[in-house]
Amino acid sequence: MQTIKMKNKVYLLDGYSMVGPLEGAGPLKDYFDYTLKDDTLKEKTFEKSERKLLLDIIKGAIEKSGLSFKDIDFFFGGDLLNQIVSSSYTARELSIPFIGLYSACATMAESLALASIFVDNGLADNVVAGTCTHFSSAERQYRFPLELGNQRPPTAQWTITGGGASVISNKKSKIRVSAVTFGKVVDYGISDVNNMGAAMAPSACDTILNHLNSMGKKVNDYDFIATGDLGKLGSEILIDLMEYNGVILGRNYADCGCMMFNKNQHVFMGGSGAGCSASVLNSYILHKLKNGEFRRVLLVSTGALMSTTTSQQGDTIPGIAHAVELEYVEEDKNKIDSKNSIKKNLVTNSKRKKRREND
Amino acid sequence: MQTIKMKNKVYLLDGYSMVGPLEGAGPLKDYFDYTLKDDTLKEKTFEKSERKLLLDIIKGAIEKSGLSFKDIDFFFGGDLLNQIVSSSYTARELSIPFIGLYSACATMAESLALASIFVDNGLADNVVAGTCTHFSSAERQYRFPLELGNQRPPTAQWTITGGGASVISNKKSKIRVSAVTFGKVVDYGISDVNNMGAAMAPSACDTILNHLNSMGKKVNDYDFIATGDLGKLGSEILIDLMEYNGVILGRNYADCGCMMFNKNQHVFMGGSGAGCSASVLNSYILHKLKNGEFRRVLLVSTGALMSTTTSQQGDTIPGIAHAVELEYVEEDKNKIDSKNSIKKNLVTNSKRKKRREND
Repeated sequence: MQTIKMKNKVYLLDGYSMVGPLEGAGPLKDYFDYTLKDDTLKEKTFEKSERKLLLDIIKGAIEKSGLSFKDIDFFFGGDLLNQIVSSSYTARELSIPFIGLYSACATMAESLALASIFVDNGLADNVVAGTCTHFSSAERQYRFPLELGNQRPPTAQWTITGGGASVISNKKSKIRVSAVTFGKVVDYGISDVNNMGAAMAPSACDTILNHLNSMGKKVNDYDFIATGDLGKLGSEILIDLMEYNGVILGRNYADCGCMMFNKNQHVFMGGSGAGCSASVLNSYILHKLKNGEFRRVLLVSTGALMSTTTSQQGDTIPGIAHAVELEYVEEDKNKIDSKNSIKKNLVTNSKRKKRREND
Repeated sequence: MQTIKMKNKVYLLDGYSMVGPLEGAGPLKDYFDYTLKDDTLKEKTFEKSERKLLLDIIKGAIEKSGLSFKDIDFFFGGDLLNQIVSSSYTARELSIPFIGLYSACATMAESLALASIFVDNGLADNVVAGTCTHFSSAERQYRFPLELGNQRPPTAQWTITGGGASVISNKKSKIRVSAVTFGKVVDYGISDVNNMGAAMAPSACDTILNHLNSMGKKVNDYDFIATGDLGKLGSEILIDLMEYNGVILGRNYADCGCMMFNKNQHVFMGGSGAGCSASVLNSYILHKLKNGEFRRVLLVSTGALMSTTTSQQGDTIPGIAHAVELEYVEEDKNKIDSKNSIKKNLVTNSKRKKRREND
């Protein structure tokens, strides 16, 4: 029952992504809808910048879908700030019924999954699901004030500035949501807050295995499997855990956190944050699904569920992963050989593989 | 579309409530399933106590429903601590797929609403929805450390120690979930964090009006309408706002926060916290619904969506309210005149009314 298959046609009508200057200079720069020149968005505090960013993203997704605000029945969202204030204050501006969620960096898949269920069961015609993060507000809430100039350990990840939103609808588009899996909370005892990839990898493994099993599918049935923000170390742990369970994640697997930055951007293990899988889904993945290069994608957003208080009190870091399966809706005229197309695209993934081979 | 009517029979199989010593000495003391003698639950920190409390509540609800853990398909929950850690760590112990939510003190209705939708649409057989709060962990996160001995202003409310959980199921019980309404975020510009009732009242008004309108019902069609934690001032503001909109909330209206404590307990405006409506629903309201004294109840949990950061940055407090309609499932043999029964029960409400008349 953990996996829910859509009974009807539920579509991802369109999506919108927006990122900060650093993210916009990375390997995915050509895919984002908008790259900020100024990551303060002319607001006085980083928290207000994050809120403005999310509002702009939600507006962008609705407009890009050709809908207006009054067409949207519900807004599903959450974020990393305490009391998910970015989403709540965004919902205040939107004046759309709001279903607030929290599953840390797994929020994009959680909100997409619930949104799809609402549309699939006729409870809504169009809903918007989205999230974002801001490097500077996350740093000062979870780690240290930027002014302190703290050094980062080699296993650290970089909370991205950016995010994405998708409009889920019963109106036909080229992308269909076919199934969703809600994850269990898994904790292997990692307590290092600078090694979140390791803390989240076991939950990603659990959710992917559950999803494949429920759907009766194999890894090779997917053109692309993307985890949210395991980073380099975390995704290597995931590959090992999957292998231990008899499933080989091959060249069709990549982590959004790894895809976000290149080696020269000095972000160590890669990007992280709820905005990471949100922005990669609504840019790169969406693009490839729209043109049929990807026929079937599994997005597995991953979240680390600790707080600064639990860490200070010596608790370990529980992880969760939610998954959403997206499919290209076949149009008979334009059959594209997806097998050929994925080869040239998974640059990040092959780089990772090369690094592993060199070790 | 804001209100969703259940298509099939969705039942509240059973619920469980647990409160701290102060709450257990209040007017509802005979209704709670368990009253703690020691609100630390023998844990070393208040955050760990809160987590233990929630786990005990969830276990209690599942056991009281006559089910076992493996029968439960999903756990819907959230709480007031940063990153909803009480719920996340509880979900880790349960090992049930977890759908994490945040809408501050409106969490009970939000989780009940989503849980009912899952069961109604055949996505699950049995799910558990619950939340709790702890006075001491809330005080130090949102206000001041207890050791500081701060005075409380007269408009302050008291975050209760306690909570409740309900098992929602397709198995028949005496209580049916008939409809749910997801609220919009409403902000009338209140910025005083010691006057949250005033901040939340407009959203409660908006949700109740929407629900009544969608259902084609009047206030008198309900034996009981309960808001979550508006407190004395907030519920008086709600009554005024409703009157302004042409709807008179009468003796069948009460606020869970007002019901929780008596005048001699010195908690000023009354109880608050996500656990407030959760514990009152799963004790007093459940009891009256089970024996048919209440035939139709509207639970409207209310949440204030600010964080300490937004307050410090001068933002106002947005409010949200979600509603769940519960009905007694008629058994022909035991027809009870509900009109007679409600008169003797709404002690708190009539007291409030008397106070208003004396003003």
